[in-house]
Amino acid sequence: MLTISIDTHSSLPMYEQIYNYIKAEIRNGNLPYHYKLPSTRSLAANLQVSRNTVDLSYAQLVSEGYIEAVPKSGYYVAMVSDLTHIKPKPSSVTKPFPISKITYRYDFSPFAIDINTFPYNTWRKLSKNCMNEYNNDLFLLGNNQGDENLRAAIGRYLHESRGVNCSEDQIIIGAGADYLLQLLSQLFQYGKPISSIAMENPAYRQAYKIFTGFHYRVIPIDLDHNGIRIQPLYESDADVVYVTPSHQYPIGIVMPIKRRMELLQWADKAPGRYIIEDDHDSEFRYKGKPIPSLQGIDSSGRVIYLGTFSRAVAPAIRVGYMVLPKNLLAVYKQYLYHYSSTVSRIDQYIITHFITDGYFERHLNKMRKLYKGKHDQLVQALKIFRDKISIEGENGGLHLVLRFLSNASEQEIIDAAGKKSIKLYGLWEHYITKPELPAAPSILLGYANMTEKNIQDGIHALYHAVKDCL
Amino acid sequence: MLTISIDTHSSLPMYEQIYNYIKAEIRNGNLPYHYKLPSTRSLAANLQVSRNTVDLSYAQLVSEGYIEAVPKSGYYVAMVSDLTHIKPKPSSVTKPFPISKITYRYDFSPFAIDINTFPYNTWRKLSKNCMNEYNNDLFLLGNNQGDENLRAAIGRYLHESRGVNCSEDQIIIGAGADYLLQLLSQLFQYGKPISSIAMENPAYRQAYKIFTGFHYRVIPIDLDHNGIRIQPLYESDADVVYVTPSHQYPIGIVMPIKRRMELLQWADKAPGRYIIEDDHDSEFRYKGKPIPSLQGIDSSGRVIYLGTFSRAVAPAIRVGYMVLPKNLLAVYKQYLYHYSSTVSRIDQYIITHFITDGYFERHLNKMRKLYKGKHDQLVQALKIFRDKISIEGENGGLHLVLRFLSNASEQEIIDAAGKKSIKLYGLWEHYITKPELPAAPSILLGYANMTEKNIQDGIHALYHAVKDCL
Repeated sequence: MLTISIDTHSSLPMYEQIYNYIKAEIRNGNLPYHYKLPSTRSLAANLQVSRNTVDLSYAQLVSEGYIEAVPKSGYYVAMVSDLTHIKPKPSSVTKPFPISKITYRYDFSPFAIDINTFPYNTWRKLSKNCMNEYNNDLFLLGNNQGDENLRAAIGRYLHESRGVNCSEDQIIIGAGADYLLQLLSQLFQYGKPISSIAMENPAYRQAYKIFTGFHYRVIPIDLDHNGIRIQPLYESDADVVYVTPSHQYPIGIVMPIKRRMELLQWADKAPGRYIIEDDHDSEFRYKGKPIPSLQGIDSSGRVIYLGTFSRAVAPAIRVGYMVLPKNLLAVYKQYLYHYSSTVSRIDQYIITHFITDGYFERHLNKMRKLYKGKHDQLVQALKIFRDKISIEGENGGLHLVLRFLSNASEQEIIDAAGKKSIKLYGLWEHYITKPELPAAPSILLGYANMTEKNIQDGIHALYHAVKDCL
Repeated sequence: MLTISIDTHSSLPMYEQIYNYIKAEIRNGNLPYHYKLPSTRSLAANLQVSRNTVDLSYAQLVSEGYIEAVPKSGYYVAMVSDLTHIKPKPSSVTKPFPISKITYRYDFSPFAIDINTFPYNTWRKLSKNCMNEYNNDLFLLGNNQGDENLRAAIGRYLHESRGVNCSEDQIIIGAGADYLLQLLSQLFQYGKPISSIAMENPAYRQAYKIFTGFHYRVIPIDLDHNGIRIQPLYESDADVVYVTPSHQYPIGIVMPIKRRMELLQWADKAPGRYIIEDDHDSEFRYKGKPIPSLQGIDSSGRVIYLGTFSRAVAPAIRVGYMVLPKNLLAVYKQYLYHYSSTVSRIDQYIITHFITDGYFERHLNKMRKLYKGKHDQLVQALKIFRDKISIEGENGGLHLVLRFLSNASEQEIIDAAGKKSIKLYGLWEHYITKPELPAAPSILLGYANMTEKNIQDGIHALYHAVKDCL
């Protein structure tokens, strides 16, 4: 007879205690194959529980294959091979690797945004509206490309503010630029397969990692003062080029119209060539109006346009968009349309209304003004360096590039600043292939999440920290 | 002299009207290369606008490369090649392809959930809390694997309810199962590269599409009444097998412990073998308790465990989780950790609290009860068919499988039902390779989003619609 001790005060139901006991006995070999279990009636009587309880335990053991019911005979331990070596690992909800986090007095991160200005109230209101609509459809899986309303809203926004020409059907919504670049990397494997992708050098390293992760050969192309050079692009065997024409990342060059036309001409010269235009921070321009997109002057369907809300709203809002030319759209529909959308319907609802109800435009205007103030403060504060530095990439984005007139290395300057608790971000690490002649030591100076006072004090401190290197 | 007509009542700023005019004139060739523009002073006087306004127009044209400033001389039209062929396409925010949507009187979709029970109030409350915390960190890019709190909450939930053993560091959060399967498909390309993946046949077709999309050879393996067959798995050269042991999709088989052990033994027989356990709907079991996971009895780090909130909460909540064995985790950290998380921080916050504040457990209990009622109603209603059908895969999930004793084909039965406005979903299309002997016509009968009354009426109508086929 099984001697099971039932704890009637346990939070575990009695049937589960019986089930656990018998399962353990089978696992450790105490109840061998074909052992006949007591009938449910006798076990129930023996344990002084209801027969229903034992029935439930046996049914669960049958479901999981530990015992078998033989009609008109009873329950037998099933053939279960090699159970004795199962040693369930102890529950180890351990802490992950500790990450040492140094806090700097001044952190000139080029990846920061001003997080104090997140439109909390609007977001709260819109998410409340979403829930109050009790629109059940919102909780079913939506369109794989993204909700139609959201695509229409983004299409209008891109047309009005970036000169992008597209139908909403050409737009694909995805959880951030990284995801969309993964999707694109898969897309390029269909149709006329693509083996090499040219990129600006220095570049957005994340895109480089994704392309090489998908086994594309990445060809780095040097920049001149108008952006990516065209001659080396012709000399390469690249089928696709990834560029940031509105504000080159990280240098900040605005690609002039002539170079844009040359780039489009390159794409037109052979079938299957594409240009990826990553318009990562074009919302922010502090002189005149935003530079119109390359996509808007593409008349032969060669430009893939990419953008996100990471800079304009917050990186935590994992929503990006990609505009495909019509021929690539057809390939997407044939091979990749089966992927479910990666953005929750609630988020799609909120962002749709954020745009269509006018909040987005107001938010952008506010942020432009705020960032322009910080930008101007930074440029002003940098005058302390006089002719020891030159500035590039100003008037747009959320960082500028500082080139030092110095024989010190970039790392020496970063280290000197670090000793005074100032965090700097070097240009060097943005190169895919390092330049032959070491360029002047250069720093990306982000200012988005610093106050104007901190910018002033930080640059003052920076000057004193590095002045011996200059 | 440029004759620009300024519309002072226009909503377009004056500087933009001047900029637009000059840009258009350069584009259509009326202002040729090296044409000298009027000085800002004389154009301002001529147009009766402030000099600042003209300065702004010229600066924008310089930024975009249409004109050049020659120091001490003035502004000249720049060399811009081939502009005349630019014909910006008309803004065509057209409607996408119309999708014809037939509404059926009774729709037995196996993909549905009961959308009337979405926890609106809780979701609203939690999203409000999230916004009220004004926690700015929440709007920065979080941990690429997902927030630590969310991973800890999911780890505890999986341990307690599914017997999964893991540390929170082994968990990766992603925007749905499709995304996680894409990530996994990339992961398998590192370390010991994997070329073929075995799958149950019939199977979850979406996984099949993703694996073949990543150029894996997919080997379909037939089922017996205990799930995937082991002998053909040994005979194949597969390195990875994708299974649904708790409730085989679509047949509903619960894999008994013996077969689970055999599967683990297969994985142990060669280095680099893995089992993907997709635990897609194991939350719902109406007899006894949920079947413990395969991952929980894996003592050699061979099982990759995959789950989502699509069935348990709603498909619109694009959140899934993947538990990697430690050796694969190391590969992930080395090669794929650079991918940003695909789930918004707000959603991660809400789901964390949904679990840790006890809402999830209450929601699951409520849904289990609700779905059990519908399930039992369906089984009861099906008695009208007497011995003309057999039922498989009952007592769990959100659909069951109906096999007809009939010489009619599956399609004939689906069509006969369709004529009476009853939507059925066939089993045939779930096969990767079609069985040699046509099986009995079989239907997946989903009931999650039907009322008990509708289930009863629907099955009654179904009986009369198809009885001539039986």
